[in-house]
Amino acid sequence: SVNQSSTMSDSSGASNSGGDSSKESSRCSTPVLDAYRSDRLRDKMRRRMESGDRWFSLEFFPPRTASGAVNLISRFDRMGSGGPLFIDITWHPAGDPGSDKETSSMMIASTAVNYCGLESILHLTCCNQSKEKITGYLAKAKHLGLKNIMALRGDPIGEDWEEEEDGFNYAIDLVKHIRSEFDDYFDICVAGYPTGHPEAESYEADLRHLKEKVDAGADFVITQLFFRPDTFLKFLDDCRAIGITCPILPGIFPIQGYQSLRQLVKLSKLEVPEEITQVIEPIKDNDAAIRNYGIQQAVEMCRVLLDSGKVPGVHFYTLNREVATMEVLRQLGLWIEDPRRPLPWAVSAHPKRKVEDVRPIFWASRPKSYIYRTQDWDDFPNGRWGNSSSPAFGELNDYYLFYLKSKSSKDALLQMWGEELQNEESVFEVFTCYITAQPNRCGHKVMCLPWNDEPLAPETNLLKDELEKVNRRGVLTINSQPNINGKPSTDPIVGWGPPGGYVFQKAYLEFFTSSENVTALLKVLKKYEPRVNYHIVNVNGRNLTNAPEMQPNAVTWGIFAGREIVQPTVVDPVSFMYWKDEAFALWIEQWGKLYEDESPSRMIIKYIHDNYFLVNLVDNDFPLENCLWQVIDDMFELLDAPPELHSEETV
Amino acid sequence: SVNQSSTMSDSSGASNSGGDSSKESSRCSTPVLDAYRSDRLRDKMRRRMESGDRWFSLEFFPPRTASGAVNLISRFDRMGSGGPLFIDITWHPAGDPGSDKETSSMMIASTAVNYCGLESILHLTCCNQSKEKITGYLAKAKHLGLKNIMALRGDPIGEDWEEEEDGFNYAIDLVKHIRSEFDDYFDICVAGYPTGHPEAESYEADLRHLKEKVDAGADFVITQLFFRPDTFLKFLDDCRAIGITCPILPGIFPIQGYQSLRQLVKLSKLEVPEEITQVIEPIKDNDAAIRNYGIQQAVEMCRVLLDSGKVPGVHFYTLNREVATMEVLRQLGLWIEDPRRPLPWAVSAHPKRKVEDVRPIFWASRPKSYIYRTQDWDDFPNGRWGNSSSPAFGELNDYYLFYLKSKSSKDALLQMWGEELQNEESVFEVFTCYITAQPNRCGHKVMCLPWNDEPLAPETNLLKDELEKVNRRGVLTINSQPNINGKPSTDPIVGWGPPGGYVFQKAYLEFFTSSENVTALLKVLKKYEPRVNYHIVNVNGRNLTNAPEMQPNAVTWGIFAGREIVQPTVVDPVSFMYWKDEAFALWIEQWGKLYEDESPSRMIIKYIHDNYFLVNLVDNDFPLENCLWQVIDDMFELLDAPPELHSEETV
Repeated sequence: SVNQSSTMSDSSGASNSGGDSSKESSRCSTPVLDAYRSDRLRDKMRRRMESGDRWFSLEFFPPRTASGAVNLISRFDRMGSGGPLFIDITWHPAGDPGSDKETSSMMIASTAVNYCGLESILHLTCCNQSKEKITGYLAKAKHLGLKNIMALRGDPIGEDWEEEEDGFNYAIDLVKHIRSEFDDYFDICVAGYPTGHPEAESYEADLRHLKEKVDAGADFVITQLFFRPDTFLKFLDDCRAIGITCPILPGIFPIQGYQSLRQLVKLSKLEVPEEITQVIEPIKDNDAAIRNYGIQQAVEMCRVLLDSGKVPGVHFYTLNREVATMEVLRQLGLWIEDPRRPLPWAVSAHPKRKVEDVRPIFWASRPKSYIYRTQDWDDFPNGRWGNSSSPAFGELNDYYLFYLKSKSSKDALLQMWGEELQNEESVFEVFTCYITAQPNRCGHKVMCLPWNDEPLAPETNLLKDELEKVNRRGVLTINSQPNINGKPSTDPIVGWGPPGGYVFQKAYLEFFTSSENVTALLKVLKKYEPRVNYHIVNVNGRNLTNAPEMQPNAVTWGIFAGREIVQPTVVDPVSFMYWKDEAFALWIEQWGKLYEDESPSRMIIKYIHDNYFLVNLVDNDFPLENCLWQVIDDMFELLDAPPELHSEETV
Repeated sequence: SVNQSSTMSDSSGASNSGGDSSKESSRCSTPVLDAYRSDRLRDKMRRRMESGDRWFSLEFFPPRTASGAVNLISRFDRMGSGGPLFIDITWHPAGDPGSDKETSSMMIASTAVNYCGLESILHLTCCNQSKEKITGYLAKAKHLGLKNIMALRGDPIGEDWEEEEDGFNYAIDLVKHIRSEFDDYFDICVAGYPTGHPEAESYEADLRHLKEKVDAGADFVITQLFFRPDTFLKFLDDCRAIGITCPILPGIFPIQGYQSLRQLVKLSKLEVPEEITQVIEPIKDNDAAIRNYGIQQAVEMCRVLLDSGKVPGVHFYTLNREVATMEVLRQLGLWIEDPRRPLPWAVSAHPKRKVEDVRPIFWASRPKSYIYRTQDWDDFPNGRWGNSSSPAFGELNDYYLFYLKSKSSKDALLQMWGEELQNEESVFEVFTCYITAQPNRCGHKVMCLPWNDEPLAPETNLLKDELEKVNRRGVLTINSQPNINGKPSTDPIVGWGPPGGYVFQKAYLEFFTSSENVTALLKVLKKYEPRVNYHIVNVNGRNLTNAPEMQPNAVTWGIFAGREIVQPTVVDPVSFMYWKDEAFALWIEQWGKLYEDESPSRMIIKYIHDNYFLVNLVDNDFPLENCLWQVIDDMFELLDAPPELHSEETV
């Protein structure tokens, strides 16, 4: 029988597609939405080479300090937004690279995968390591979600070294070991040297050695830096000539300073070409000029490489810095801030989370916390959230984990949130300034809140006026979304998922407010049953909800051509009880503790923590105008009414 | 900590609710939509007693012949539509009641559960049976999906019998055995005798015996018939007085004929009261008059019972007949044809199918076949259909299984579908007459087709004009649905699920058509990519689709207050390959075989079977007007165009 399957291409034939929907997004797309596509790095490369869509990648080294770790993770988020196909993290035995320290290569690479959603390669050096030790590192990397290894020899201890029997002598030994112990689990990258390895007998010998490394099981090659495009292109031709067929990626080093260039030359034993020294020497004390020149030189070189048609992607040695590399990428047109999101929340790249496509809405502004608190789950909700009565969220004991820590210093936070609080209304003001982006009474913009590390998302900005109104009166909102009744999935503000679809939302509002307000609110909510679902809790465990038997309520969903419904966000009453502990604790951990113990400011925050309620509301009737603002209005109307209209009933 | 949960009632506060949404539907609702509600019969009774919503139940006996089985299943569907809380099937050792024969009590009860979606009680008698045998029957019943047993002694062999040691002597022994072997799995019903069991020492002794039966583990009591309401009400009071607290349901026997009354009296050893004999005797030869009287008497008696406030439901001995019982129920206002459906397709009541909430659309008109072909699955799709590449549908080898068999006789089918077919157009005509409900050229209405056992569903009727047009020209439609963009879930034609929600659909069309048509269709479909998904197959395995990597496509979904998305229908390319075998076979099995082998009519059907294609189309753009009619128009336009516009390419 003849079977002909004509598969639907990623064509942009749909009338409501925006942007170039034929380009595969570099962000780890969810195989749920692209179930047929292999998400192995080598397969992503293959698809990009077939489509001719060039990529870039970024190399970083592990930080030396804890605050360096915090900054590096922020850098990953910022540089990740431009769409690198992958990043890699170097390995230095002296830095305890396989440990659990926040400064270790292992932890940094794992964080990039799990918390920043980036495809990541962990470097691994093998010389002077036992096979057990190496196997242990690989197993740990696999467990943490890492799928790619750059196999290196590393620098042997001491000038002369002798080959160990049954030890790792060369990178090829490591490649063989990985394949032997882990089969095809990892994608393996190896290093190439466009002018030959400094220790090689000859350029030709080093080429043969590279071929052996690749034949032993490597998937692609990244080269040492070089200064002229011809150097790389000749090397590339020579590799192809001896039968190396895998992708070979040029390592680009934008010159960032005179000293760093000298240092680099010393380490790599490369010679800086005449045409570069001539430019650099005269301006060696002018860092800005050198950086500009470095950018220029890198751009020109990359252009030649890309125009050759033989270079599918370029690899940057960032030295953990942003500006120069990003500028080069922008000039090359490779920096693409793809606004499309496969799902409305930040996806993790751990393989075990591959099919995860639904989350509770509560962690929308704290996705890294959500990933942390669910890291021990063996499987993740797919399709539906379901009726799991014990979702087993891990405790959040340390609010200062390097991937959770606020980017702002204590001083900056005090400036934004108040060096001194007079009363509860001082707190209302902070919220209002955050919403409106207006400076506070001391002239500082409130760029974040304990629950929101970034300014208002574009979607939340749609509700700015209503949010301002309610925050002024002490309905302190920390999460919200408008109702959406079938907007195109390519909508720049609220869209997500493949193009050609339609996205929907129920209106949602989550806020802290006083118990007096809650008493009035409960009366008002009776009139809105069953249209409005509510859940109201305080730090002591008071718990009021009209969720039918604690079932999850879908609040975001999308319909796409040729696919099942995607329902990425729910309001789940069970998860809310875990979230509320975190939400209440953030008052103290991130705000209260800025002040002295027993100080009036601290007492105000503590009062709010102890006495306010956390409320979430859902308007189920998504085709109608959002009624939640009316609910709040009605609540205030009741509070403002003369006393005889209040009943004696309190919460 | 104080936990207060106020649960959302089934209140009809929602503005778009129709009907009395506070009444729990008697149809086996899906716990997916009502996940918190226990679906045990005794819990359904408890909820009905709390709400005061009275019920009825129906008792049947197993048929004697295979065609009797076919008729009885149809009767279940018809009488089930009025909303019985449960039905029960009697057990007669002489009739091989535990066998796999279509006439056995076991098979009939199992069919009622699995194929008719009715809560069912299987009677079981225990005397002269070994414990192993009884345990075997119970295990088989459980495996088949039965959850309720009526535990009876049965009639011992011979007039005198002796108690067996370690045997089953009384029904109480069976009750104990069921609880001991199966814990709380089954709900157990026992028989009560309002005037005492004929063999009991005394009325009081029999009451005590009933209490012992109930204490041994029975959940409720159904009584023997009686002729006066007082008889039952006194019995009920006496039961309560000695501490029997479970539900006690009156058994109602509408008098249907003089002979059947006499027979009944002989078997039950009851006395017919004077006031009844006085009416019956004079009219004993007038069956119609007796039936009318029987209806009247039953209605009056039930009214007294229900008005007492002590009777939550009434149980009818139907003698497998419909008319009298249905009339009594209508007059009592208990017959409620609840148009609400928990899901758009007929739900099965097997416990293992409890969470099933998504099916392929193809079996929409053949749900019993779907249930049959998936009966061996251990679990059922919930939430999403998913990417199961081998759903393992069972073969459909016997198109004449009693629960699948057409209700129409061979003669009736020939009248509808043609005693003699002239050509393919004769077949087109049959389809057209089915769609339009106009008589065929011989004056007969076409009430069904091989793929559709019933006339057009109301939803399909919405598309009648367009369907007629295309069928006339040889696009032989067998399944379709309109697009729906957020109609209230209480919509009388397309609604389903809880009230207060919104239902959505993508437009769908499935038809047989010639290969010439398909050639033109494929050209037309190129213009509609990716908006229209198609799948085109023939009996030989030709297989063309643009479904991305054979993924399922959601075509029906609903949004409800406080719940996750329900997506009950998909177009699944993998399942389509199983369905198409059944769809093609039905040409031959149900139509072709009506004619002589080698006859011209048979040859016409065979030609269609061998050469036509089965096509399904989905219009993904559900907010826009259904484009599938335009697709078909375009196809005919291409076919009607002068020859030079056709390419030589054929399918």
